Amino acid sequence: MKIASISRADGSTQWGLSDGQSFLAPASAGVDLPLDLVSAIQVSDWREQLRPALRQLHDGGGQWIRADQLAAPLVLGRNVFCLGPNYSDHAAESAHSPGVPAEPVYFSKATTTLAPPVHSLPLDRSLTTRLDWEVELAVVIAVGGRNIDEATALDHVLGYSVAIDFSARDVQEGRPEGQWFLGKSIDGYFPLGPWIVTTDEIPDPQALRIELTVNGVVKQHATTEAMLFPVRRIIADLSRYVTLQPGDVISTGTPGGVGNARDPQEHLAEGDRVVATISGIGSVTTTIVPTSGRSATTPGAS
Amino acid sequence: MKIASISRADGSTQWGLSDGQSFLAPASAGVDLPLDLVSAIQVSDWREQLRPALRQLHDGGGQWIRADQLAAPLVLGRNVFCLGPNYSDHAAESAHSPGVPAEPVYFSKATTTLAPPVHSLPLDRSLTTRLDWEVELAVVIAVGGRNIDEATALDHVLGYSVAIDFSARDVQEGRPEGQWFLGKSIDGYFPLGPWIVTTDEIPDPQALRIELTVNGVVKQHATTEAMLFPVRRIIADLSRYVTLQPGDVISTGTPGGVGNARDPQEHLAEGDRVVATISGIGSVTTTIVPTSGRSATTPGAS
Repeated sequence: MKIASISRADGSTQWGLSDGQSFLAPASAGVDLPLDLVSAIQVSDWREQLRPALRQLHDGGGQWIRADQLAAPLVLGRNVFCLGPNYSDHAAESAHSPGVPAEPVYFSKATTTLAPPVHSLPLDRSLTTRLDWEVELAVVIAVGGRNIDEATALDHVLGYSVAIDFSARDVQEGRPEGQWFLGKSIDGYFPLGPWIVTTDEIPDPQALRIELTVNGVVKQHATTEAMLFPVRRIIADLSRYVTLQPGDVISTGTPGGVGNARDPQEHLAEGDRVVATISGIGSVTTTIVPTSGRSATTPGAS
Repeated sequence: MKIASISRADGSTQWGLSDGQSFLAPASAGVDLPLDLVSAIQVSDWREQLRPALRQLHDGGGQWIRADQLAAPLVLGRNVFCLGPNYSDHAAESAHSPGVPAEPVYFSKATTTLAPPVHSLPLDRSLTTRLDWEVELAVVIAVGGRNIDEATALDHVLGYSVAIDFSARDVQEGRPEGQWFLGKSIDGYFPLGPWIVTTDEIPDPQALRIELTVNGVVKQHATTEAMLFPVRRIIADLSRYVTLQPGDVISTGTPGGVGNARDPQEHLAEGDRVVATISGIGSVTTTIVPTSGRSATTPGAS
């Protein structure tokens, strides 16, 4: 199944099922579930209750509507957990990364980076002139926990989605100490979607083709089999330190081929069209657009 | 005013006012406000509506109750924004930090690090044998925004709180790439409190004494005047990149005197009592306790 969210006229979003073209909200089929996907996972056991209910909804006679504008498939309850080098070719191409790491490296992206699967990203050249792409497989957690066992780790997963970890390389590298947080946390730097494909359709997350094009030219192309740390290992490792929660999103690192590692380096410019695709899931499309200028906020006006 | 939260018997928390000893919930005085502080800030203009209403509540005839068990004063809507080196003596003592940074350095701590102002932190020696302390002034945002002006930045602040940025130095330094996220994101590594002192009581956040003791011995002692980047500068700088939101917490870095920089190095052990104090706010007390063992979680049991 595909779990998606649509944008409504009042600015809110509504989650439901997608068949790739149309959308079906639980409420429209008389199924009473929280309006927010993460709350729905929290109040209803995903595997025993919610997933079967959604399957029934999917196969029932509900009215599917045209889904004009997809939103990001869920609302983030906290920052995205992100992996550093997790494909050997990207580890090798990264100047900051001397060789293949022995253990996963983590950082986070702020919740305000979340963007819809089709969107326009303003390039603010007062912040960065070295905007780069990173296609990543995103994992959405259904069942939280601490010290999750690697053998059962995938039972904690709701499903998978496509993400782009946009990165302002000058911000990432320009401030001392090498903390990646800020250069990867600019508003809109994490488009996610087009939906969450549930695990019944993707039993093995390490057997997916992952690709990114810029203006139709393939820049990144790999399979998730090449991950240094597979999804089950990431969940087990991360949950030794942090209690995972329903709705957590883990972005699992990018394969080789980023712009920053090319000779000469390539960076995104206004008008560029970035398409990230993972087999069995779908595509996320970001168009780089000029910034509309620096909009200041003052108390009372925000 | 002091905004605090108390733990209730059912495990939930309730926010209200504290006078340092007693607690007054808005509902108990007939004031109808959302049960969650961040929602209350969102639906009601902080400066024009909510703050005056709380002042009226504070001075009115409501029934104050004994506050037995304070919770962290708010629920985190996303990871804590944290500053790297922000006092020159800490910048100088940090091996990873060659000199004073020209711009603020940021990382984040996961929401599950949040802990009450008086609490016991289990030391899991399978994760770290180099647990360290860092006292920090925490800033709570009332009014969000992007590109906030430094001159008016403090108008966006709800108030200030005391935090400890506990850090597992071996995790922080042990994984390649030097990302601090994981070593600072272990469950319970961010006690916060004892309350949020609103800005009317702290007009100048750069004039506070900040101190940390371990078993009564002073380990860190400074004034916030020594910050390399004052609160107003941090808010202005960070909001160039990230839209700040009501309820965001920014932890503003630690002064010199951490255990990792001492000769010989000092690390926390079971039984140690860590007390962090900031003048005009209060104290946070963490007792290091043995871990009760590795508790695994399986789906259905969480």
